[in-house]
Amino acid sequence: MACNSSDNTGKTIRCKAAICRKAGEPLVIEEIEVDPPKSWEVRIKILLTSLCHSDVTIWKMDIDVVAKFPRIFGHEAVGVVESVGEHVEEFKEGDTVVPVFLANCEECRDCKSPKSNLCSKFGREIFSEMPRDGTSRFKDMNGETLYHFLCVSSFSEYTVVDVAHLVNISHYHLPLDKACLLSCGVSTGVGAAWKVGDVEEGSTVAIFGLGAVGLAVAVGAKQRGATKIIGVDINAEKFEIGKRFGITDFVNPSTCEDKSVSEVIKEMTTGGADYCFECIGLASLMAEAFNSSRNGWGKTVILGVEMHGSQLTLNPYLLGMGKTITGSMFGGIKPKSDIPLLANKYLDKDLNLEGFITHEVPFKDINKAFDYLQQGKGLRCIIKMDP
Amino acid sequence: MACNSSDNTGKTIRCKAAICRKAGEPLVIEEIEVDPPKSWEVRIKILLTSLCHSDVTIWKMDIDVVAKFPRIFGHEAVGVVESVGEHVEEFKEGDTVVPVFLANCEECRDCKSPKSNLCSKFGREIFSEMPRDGTSRFKDMNGETLYHFLCVSSFSEYTVVDVAHLVNISHYHLPLDKACLLSCGVSTGVGAAWKVGDVEEGSTVAIFGLGAVGLAVAVGAKQRGATKIIGVDINAEKFEIGKRFGITDFVNPSTCEDKSVSEVIKEMTTGGADYCFECIGLASLMAEAFNSSRNGWGKTVILGVEMHGSQLTLNPYLLGMGKTITGSMFGGIKPKSDIPLLANKYLDKDLNLEGFITHEVPFKDINKAFDYLQQGKGLRCIIKMDP
Repeated sequence: MACNSSDNTGKTIRCKAAICRKAGEPLVIEEIEVDPPKSWEVRIKILLTSLCHSDVTIWKMDIDVVAKFPRIFGHEAVGVVESVGEHVEEFKEGDTVVPVFLANCEECRDCKSPKSNLCSKFGREIFSEMPRDGTSRFKDMNGETLYHFLCVSSFSEYTVVDVAHLVNISHYHLPLDKACLLSCGVSTGVGAAWKVGDVEEGSTVAIFGLGAVGLAVAVGAKQRGATKIIGVDINAEKFEIGKRFGITDFVNPSTCEDKSVSEVIKEMTTGGADYCFECIGLASLMAEAFNSSRNGWGKTVILGVEMHGSQLTLNPYLLGMGKTITGSMFGGIKPKSDIPLLANKYLDKDLNLEGFITHEVPFKDINKAFDYLQQGKGLRCIIKMDP
Repeated sequence: MACNSSDNTGKTIRCKAAICRKAGEPLVIEEIEVDPPKSWEVRIKILLTSLCHSDVTIWKMDIDVVAKFPRIFGHEAVGVVESVGEHVEEFKEGDTVVPVFLANCEECRDCKSPKSNLCSKFGREIFSEMPRDGTSRFKDMNGETLYHFLCVSSFSEYTVVDVAHLVNISHYHLPLDKACLLSCGVSTGVGAAWKVGDVEEGSTVAIFGLGAVGLAVAVGAKQRGATKIIGVDINAEKFEIGKRFGITDFVNPSTCEDKSVSEVIKEMTTGGADYCFECIGLASLMAEAFNSSRNGWGKTVILGVEMHGSQLTLNPYLLGMGKTITGSMFGGIKPKSDIPLLANKYLDKDLNLEGFITHEVPFKDINKAFDYLQQGKGLRCIIKMDP
């Protein structure tokens, strides 16, 4: 690390970051300069970060509106406050913080409503700059501006985050790796089961895609008392893995023969699951999830972002049969109020966060994390910043 | 009328019915024979009936699975019990009753759950026979069997209805025409606003299609305290008509010029309506309703049955933005418990049922009711059985 945090308040920090210069190309660790935080901004030292599917999805995309390079990816992380800008009262140097891609201003109509977690003060685009002034806090050693990613950019030893995108967890004695998980994927899955699906005791649940998010849905559903939690995945090994997270039954679409997955699930649940969760991002699978839900009250929750931009086709008659389909960003979690709740549930041993971290690499090997995720190896790979 | 009810217990009744012998052809009033009710069945004398869109939709359909002729249509009505079959305890001769196309056995998992109104003991097909034994209670004077419709067949002076499809309103001093409205269309609309949409005070509502069902949604939304209720209809006259039911604003899709209806509604509601209701049955309009709903918590309720069997195409990204789409049969109303509630609300002057009946014809002129509905004239046409 090129600096000692306490010396640098108000000054530019020089540190290492993993830079992506072209869509789909391996990241390169370079020295960069990180500006001091402006008003309502916090500069944090990243301690741990991990790779989430959205990083990989956007990293691969070579579409003008999305592809902003050179860029610093990363949005699932935990860090410590190095310095704060003007008007920042919620955070102080040394606080342990979780950055979140979703803003939470706590003042707008959405933030004040229990029904929404989509802050309407700050937009919800794939942010490439700071949300208030639309500029970057990063540049490389040639003076070229580096784009932010999702208002976090955690693949850097230091980053600058708006207070609306930061949660203070200093009062919780949460292990750092668990805090990192709560920054995105695991909160999304548990939140979807609790806040969006609102899974009831004794119910049946079908989860399409057993990555970290899907397994976190299982954890959330199990905690709520669901009695049958069916995992759907083309990787047969996911059944054994899934059992540790609450999965009780398994469907492998590639071995369903002449039946559709929804037909199989309807047979397993006497008419359809009470709750279905799509955690992959394929329109065809979203439709299958919807078709797998029970008439009368079946609810399907879409968590995956459609990876090909395809439209979703549904039979409207099935809506008339009382089925519901909905979705959410970040599992309906309101970062500032709900992440502390999840932390408390974990500390009270009421929420199982074990088993999600399957790999760990030092920052210099960050590209290995991309390999693991793309090869479907393991769940979360923690990237440890250099001490 | 060919008989006096009290004489005929256990005997076949000869009476008049309006028979449809071929899809889309005018009904013909003929003499028919109505068998006595079997176990768990009730024979009722129809007092008033009215024509609902579903009658017309199915009457026109020339598809094998649906087109069952000769048939007695009609499913929105009020009547009086003439006689009851074995095991019937809930009804007795002389009771005022409302028949309903949707079964409510009160014993199955769905009937017992507050979340569903789709009785799982009895199916939900377009019934052409009695639900328990699959036979008809009607024949014409040549001895040919006549098909039932939606378990009601109210276009007959006498009909036989299963107890699961009948609601006893004898204890409510409800005007007969209001009782007839509660048998289908008006309950569907009010129920959709109350039970499916669960419209909140101060909210914004957009209603696509201002027929009787759409206007009943407005009545339900107004009763719940919605402050902006936008009607969407290509018939410009519907704004003035709609105002009497609670419509506060109006969008005519044919005068939106280069903007889509959803763009116009988003402008009128600063981002989208809290609740959208589709009451026509067009997939394209269902998508427009969904697109008109607000991010964060916008809920779209589909009431129309897609009239061309088309699929519904949605942008799944908008589900991720927290929008929900759902639907229901009969507006989520559980006939036996909710129709009495609606009756009470009306009697307490807490529910406005005025203005829905715009025409009245004697039974012999029943085809005029079909003309009015198809020409979009008025809302409900009451068909008065001969005294």
